[in-house]
Amino acid sequence: MDKKRIYLFGNGSAEGSAELKNLLGGKGAGLAEMARIGVPVPPGFTITTETCIEYYTLGKNKIKELLTQGVIDSIKFIEEATDKKFGDRENPLLVSVRSGARVSMPGMMDTVLNLGINDKAVEGLALKTGNSRFAWDSYRRFIQMYGDVVMGVKAEKGEIDPFEAEIEAIKEKKGVKLDTDLDTEDLKELVERFKKVVKDRTGKEFPTDPWDQLWGAIMAVFDSWNNERAIAYRRIHEIPDDWGTAVNVVAMVFGNMGNHSATGVAFTRDAATGEKRFNGEYLINAQGEDVVAGIRTPLQITKADSIAWAKANNVSEEERESKYPSLEEYMPEVFKELFNVQHKLEQHYRDMQDIEFTIEEERLWLLQTRTGKRTGAAMVKIALDMLDEGIINEKEAVLRVDPNKLNELLHPVFDKEAIKKAKVLTKGLPASPGAATGQVVFFADEAKEWAEDGKKVILVRIETSPEDIEGMNAAQGILTSRGGMTSHAAVVARGMGKCAVVGAGDMEIDYDKREFKVGNILMKEGEWISLNGSTGEVYLGKIDTIDPEIGGYFGRLMELADKYRRLQVRTNAETPRDAKVARKFGAQGIGLARTEHMFFEGERIMHMREMILADTEEKRREALEKLLPYQMADFEAIFEVMEGLPVTVRLLDPPLHEFLPHDEDAQQEVAEEMGVSVDVIKEKVEELKEMNPMLGHRGCRLGNTYPEITEMQVRAILGAALNLKGKGIKAIPEIMVPLVGEAKELELQKSIIEKSAEKVFEEYGDKIDYLIGTMIEIPRAALTADEVAKYAEFFSFGTNDLTQMTYGYSRDDVSKFLPKYKELGILEHDPFQVLDQRGVGQLVEIGTKKGRSVKPNLKVGICGEHGGEPSSVEFCHRVGMNYVSCSPFRVPIARLAAAQANIKYGVEVEA
Amino acid sequence: MDKKRIYLFGNGSAEGSAELKNLLGGKGAGLAEMARIGVPVPPGFTITTETCIEYYTLGKNKIKELLTQGVIDSIKFIEEATDKKFGDRENPLLVSVRSGARVSMPGMMDTVLNLGINDKAVEGLALKTGNSRFAWDSYRRFIQMYGDVVMGVKAEKGEIDPFEAEIEAIKEKKGVKLDTDLDTEDLKELVERFKKVVKDRTGKEFPTDPWDQLWGAIMAVFDSWNNERAIAYRRIHEIPDDWGTAVNVVAMVFGNMGNHSATGVAFTRDAATGEKRFNGEYLINAQGEDVVAGIRTPLQITKADSIAWAKANNVSEEERESKYPSLEEYMPEVFKELFNVQHKLEQHYRDMQDIEFTIEEERLWLLQTRTGKRTGAAMVKIALDMLDEGIINEKEAVLRVDPNKLNELLHPVFDKEAIKKAKVLTKGLPASPGAATGQVVFFADEAKEWAEDGKKVILVRIETSPEDIEGMNAAQGILTSRGGMTSHAAVVARGMGKCAVVGAGDMEIDYDKREFKVGNILMKEGEWISLNGSTGEVYLGKIDTIDPEIGGYFGRLMELADKYRRLQVRTNAETPRDAKVARKFGAQGIGLARTEHMFFEGERIMHMREMILADTEEKRREALEKLLPYQMADFEAIFEVMEGLPVTVRLLDPPLHEFLPHDEDAQQEVAEEMGVSVDVIKEKVEELKEMNPMLGHRGCRLGNTYPEITEMQVRAILGAALNLKGKGIKAIPEIMVPLVGEAKELELQKSIIEKSAEKVFEEYGDKIDYLIGTMIEIPRAALTADEVAKYAEFFSFGTNDLTQMTYGYSRDDVSKFLPKYKELGILEHDPFQVLDQRGVGQLVEIGTKKGRSVKPNLKVGICGEHGGEPSSVEFCHRVGMNYVSCSPFRVPIARLAAAQANIKYGVEVEA
Repeated sequence: MDKKRIYLFGNGSAEGSAELKNLLGGKGAGLAEMARIGVPVPPGFTITTETCIEYYTLGKNKIKELLTQGVIDSIKFIEEATDKKFGDRENPLLVSVRSGARVSMPGMMDTVLNLGINDKAVEGLALKTGNSRFAWDSYRRFIQMYGDVVMGVKAEKGEIDPFEAEIEAIKEKKGVKLDTDLDTEDLKELVERFKKVVKDRTGKEFPTDPWDQLWGAIMAVFDSWNNERAIAYRRIHEIPDDWGTAVNVVAMVFGNMGNHSATGVAFTRDAATGEKRFNGEYLINAQGEDVVAGIRTPLQITKADSIAWAKANNVSEEERESKYPSLEEYMPEVFKELFNVQHKLEQHYRDMQDIEFTIEEERLWLLQTRTGKRTGAAMVKIALDMLDEGIINEKEAVLRVDPNKLNELLHPVFDKEAIKKAKVLTKGLPASPGAATGQVVFFADEAKEWAEDGKKVILVRIETSPEDIEGMNAAQGILTSRGGMTSHAAVVARGMGKCAVVGAGDMEIDYDKREFKVGNILMKEGEWISLNGSTGEVYLGKIDTIDPEIGGYFGRLMELADKYRRLQVRTNAETPRDAKVARKFGAQGIGLARTEHMFFEGERIMHMREMILADTEEKRREALEKLLPYQMADFEAIFEVMEGLPVTVRLLDPPLHEFLPHDEDAQQEVAEEMGVSVDVIKEKVEELKEMNPMLGHRGCRLGNTYPEITEMQVRAILGAALNLKGKGIKAIPEIMVPLVGEAKELELQKSIIEKSAEKVFEEYGDKIDYLIGTMIEIPRAALTADEVAKYAEFFSFGTNDLTQMTYGYSRDDVSKFLPKYKELGILEHDPFQVLDQRGVGQLVEIGTKKGRSVKPNLKVGICGEHGGEPSSVEFCHRVGMNYVSCSPFRVPIARLAAAQANIKYGVEVEA
Repeated sequence: MDKKRIYLFGNGSAEGSAELKNLLGGKGAGLAEMARIGVPVPPGFTITTETCIEYYTLGKNKIKELLTQGVIDSIKFIEEATDKKFGDRENPLLVSVRSGARVSMPGMMDTVLNLGINDKAVEGLALKTGNSRFAWDSYRRFIQMYGDVVMGVKAEKGEIDPFEAEIEAIKEKKGVKLDTDLDTEDLKELVERFKKVVKDRTGKEFPTDPWDQLWGAIMAVFDSWNNERAIAYRRIHEIPDDWGTAVNVVAMVFGNMGNHSATGVAFTRDAATGEKRFNGEYLINAQGEDVVAGIRTPLQITKADSIAWAKANNVSEEERESKYPSLEEYMPEVFKELFNVQHKLEQHYRDMQDIEFTIEEERLWLLQTRTGKRTGAAMVKIALDMLDEGIINEKEAVLRVDPNKLNELLHPVFDKEAIKKAKVLTKGLPASPGAATGQVVFFADEAKEWAEDGKKVILVRIETSPEDIEGMNAAQGILTSRGGMTSHAAVVARGMGKCAVVGAGDMEIDYDKREFKVGNILMKEGEWISLNGSTGEVYLGKIDTIDPEIGGYFGRLMELADKYRRLQVRTNAETPRDAKVARKFGAQGIGLARTEHMFFEGERIMHMREMILADTEEKRREALEKLLPYQMADFEAIFEVMEGLPVTVRLLDPPLHEFLPHDEDAQQEVAEEMGVSVDVIKEKVEELKEMNPMLGHRGCRLGNTYPEITEMQVRAILGAALNLKGKGIKAIPEIMVPLVGEAKELELQKSIIEKSAEKVFEEYGDKIDYLIGTMIEIPRAALTADEVAKYAEFFSFGTNDLTQMTYGYSRDDVSKFLPKYKELGILEHDPFQVLDQRGVGQLVEIGTKKGRSVKPNLKVGICGEHGGEPSSVEFCHRVGMNYVSCSPFRVPIARLAAAQANIKYGVEVEA
């Protein structure tokens, strides 16, 4: 028997179903599924994806031969189901033709609508709709669409679209400005002109026979599978060439056939709040695009919504009933059917649906149903409500929430109405989510002062440095013109949960003049701007923000997530404030407490500089002695907040020159404060200068060449822990050595740490348990992890630096080519945001495996920015890590992502 | 039967042999071997390394019990063989006790000499030597040595050595300055004082019984296996703890027992020239240390040498015969025996030997024989002579030459006599071998001017940059205060075969004052300094240099090497001059022609800057159009020199800011030349500035964001090749894309290259074969090499950058901690000199394997600096590379190293 190449649907049944997605494509399978469960969809048929592949081996003629009888039969099926006739002058059947692969592929053929229209059928359409202008407008649109998509009439380079040129010409002739000013006669003329354009450009007559039109469109869909855009898209998204595309031919239905017709969109639940409330909008005597275009005021579907709408818009009940009736009132029977259909769809798909429908002469047709987009809050509520309603189970509820969407529940957002009117000034990278509005200031100290005066400020900098931290904290948000997703500004802002947009390269900042320019727009200090840290958009002026409400639903979701996850979630925090926030969000310890920020405040930086300027070990020790009490106090405060939970403290990491001032004025100032000549400072700055500081004298290279720094830090960490022990508070310190690339580096650091620990224990007459471990952030450390593990009790993958070195990208400079690389499709994601599993991930796997080959129970975690990114968390779960660590505001995201990973990969829940 | 713990040797036989090295240690096995083949060595015995390990499990008492009878018997054996008696007043037997592991281990116990001496035996020694001062001096030395090494009498921190303190005290008492001013009575007093020191410090009497002394020394050797230094040494050199050390107890023999005694050193061949000529020096009535100390004029061993010596020193034949007789004349019988022994040793060990001997009362004793050190020239000659003599075979001859020593044959060296008197000013890294002397200049243009005036100059810079190239070329040598083995100065100098010392961190250079300081020493422009590029030493003043002579031996060696190697050897060269040199040295193609240097000379840099300053693609193309003819001419010149051999051209690699001037004056100058405001230049410099240029916008990131650069270079490369084809000259271009980290980067570059190539071929109406490949220099490229290989016809490992990124070391900044890391034993080698096989090498292996998993015949090479380093070449051979590429002057080294690798790893010779 011949292979089945065509699947029918409509009239309450279907030959296909959702399960045949590979064969029918996503769209075809969806239509079939709806038809199958008794939802009224316009009848139609799907030509299989396999036929597309056959097309490429057998050729056009052979395929047409194989399909002809089936297509004729299928059109007959549609004709019968709709009681219309293909190409008929009285009651013409028009169809749409669409491509549809297994996955949505924007690179392929667009839709062709109204196929079947011609000089005869247009009359029938005019008659049925009572609107000849609409009929002719549909006709000329069809020629334009078909001419472009199927016949390949495109503008040459530098030319305007030839069809648009004709429209312009006719408008000029008539002396009108808008397309809508053209009347039926004009449109008739346009149809003739368009046909001529096609003839001139292609040498072929525009096909007026509906069957010719149909075959042309079907072949065009097959051809589109291998057009340049589609091939490029497949390559980027790694879609196999042999999947092929299906062709969907569906009867057109018209919501604009008069006052008994309508069209609309609806949601089975409230997409903003998640409430279980059928809702939506519709328009009488209108086409789908009219709803989207927003020219006419859409009406509410339910009576309740309609009344609420009237109230909000000061419309009287009388006026509402007459001019703005709900569908519930206007067509009660159709409404009832629609209500049942939406319920059926939601029950069937087991999720909130976003549906499109058309009512043609009081007959309801569903055109599409899909999972509805929703806010973060709605996402959480719907998942839990559906769990309670018994529609889904716990695991499904956990999987239903996009972890990234939780951000919306944790950060302020812009007022919805206000943002609609806002003007975008520029765009940067969405470095830290949330919304912020404030007055522009350029200096950290001034940000602090203005904030103390009760002003809201946005700190605008080329880049930020550790000296700016207090100003960043005082600001509502941070905006920089340079730097990537892991630049200082981005990392610190995320840690603070503060809105930030970074690397907005269009901005030219002039600190001297206290202003910045974007193109011609000049912004001065004190002017208002607003930032969307979730999208990277920067707006002109003040825009109101709304604080998030974290309700019980959020808490319930987190509990569920914790039930199903295996990975521990820690936080990256180095202040008691951040630690508190993170603990509140459920952090199970600190995975990374950087110690360098602790050297910047007030007096400390002076002692730090004293240490750096010291020319003997003795003098260095003196300066370090002065730093000790500060560090110890800092650690005590953090350990206290994290009582009973582990705290991983990373030893000093950045190159020493970061602590010295680089501009002349500041150098002069420091020289005076320290009582040395400015030349001493300059010489030191010069001496410490590095071509590539990222790859320079930092991390354990410092601790090994100046062991006294490590010694001081160990004294501070363990001293702090012992002080707390005295007060009955349990600290669990884990000392982490940064930037190890060779096992011997760790071996040496370990011996320094252990010797210092012995001294502290002796001094206190008491001991405390602690661990020694290392960052794995240098490719060589991952490659030689079996050697490194001999000296480590834990590994923490520092995937920020590991990404820098594995890719050879400086995160400070990457903005120079990364945007272009994403545009070119060379990179799918910014690898500093989403862990590169194919490259960097290999090193993570190698490192984990080799480490555990020596120590099977080696504790392994991640403390790069990726620790809070869902797909990266999933990866960490898969490679068998013990924990991820991320910035405080990402802790809930990581908890959820960890649970999802565990559910997806079927690992059993512990205990 | 009991386990054999002691092995005797002497009296013309031995229980052990060279094969028992693991059991007897290197020293013990060597002595046994000499005895075994009938060479007269002082009798003695070796306690096995296994006994040392037993010592650690069984303890001191048990071991002594197990050894006692054997030691007694062995001493008796020595007594009989020497006709002396242990502890005897008349004719005392003294012995030395030494540790000796499988490999030489400086961390262990030093030698104890003269053991067995005491208040009685000292008298016998005085009697036998006729020198009571010597006898008592030997005694006090023994107490000092034994007190320190065996009994642990050491100076406390801050204290001077307690024995030395006594010497000082007695000298003060006597009012003399030198140790040699002390007479026998003083020495007797010193012996008493020393014994008191031991008693005071250890609470124990100094052992006067020879047997107590012996047991103490044996146990001390065992203990020394686990002293801190030895453990540290083992850890660094990865020597297993359970190897243990042997103990060697050997009869002392004295060359100072009167005029019938003597001592000396000799070589079986001439260590300087390699001539087959027995030679050496000796002293009558002297100890070994006297020869080394150089106070007395040593005499020649052969008569011929003695006559030559006399001539050179204006000594008459009469005077020579009486005062400076040769051993051949002075003791003809002993000489004859020695001559036979040296011949036997050379034949036995099959290599030139360096021997130590002592004649005690006309009886010859060999104390040591080892493979003699020799100059590079001698190494080559000896290997080939021995091949001709039938002593070794071809493979052995190839293996006998240390490839690094070939440097001496290729570069100038200092005059031997002159260098002895030279004063070292400072030390840097030995960046490029050879010797150079010249006057200090600080600026490249001045170096050129001075050189044109016929002066010899050394260019002294903090760092060099591409602008300095002409000055570097004009100078005799280059000295920098900053940068590592792969800094610009180092790489360029090696390419030129020019002597260079880099990263001499002690130097403070002041360009303004045209001077530099090292500590208190001030050197001004025009003063003379000299550089040894092979050691890194910088000397004060002018030192004559001698040019190398490359003789027929060198050529024969290279022929032999080529016969046995499998790896191809190419060169890194980008000028016709370098290419010519390399071809002369046997390069089989160019593995890396950098193109960036081609943009610096004269006019070109202007056009390059025009290109960089262009703000539209169009303007960029205009500027590139101007650069095209220059590039094309450059390529033509190189292709012509390399006719018939492949030339790998790397597309533009460095970040664009390297081509812009960074200081204000130069910016002003450029602005004027280009007719733009200086602000334009400054802004561009600011815009292009990068925090970590090494990880920035460079390599194929440039070629992908500015494809027009790639297009121009491809036009130049293929156009040049086609121009030559027209002249009948065959060019074989290979286009290499730098800095690929993601396969899609190469895919895009490949498509740009191919499209440009099509255009060129169309333009010329002719085609040429060429390859497209990529550098593998980013860790991610190695990790994803299976993807990258899809688009590559060859891989070339850029191990300079790969090392930078795998270790996270910036080669420009590594001098800040690398020396300290080597000192601490964290790194054994500078990984930029010697390929790190454990880390970076893993990526090379992964990359090669994954690449070939997709393309089994993928051509793989290396073009990092490691391509000319012997151990790295061996590694490249082992991982199955097709070729190595190195700087021209390293080509012979690589050829030899490649042959040695092939011989060692037993791969068959091709064809």
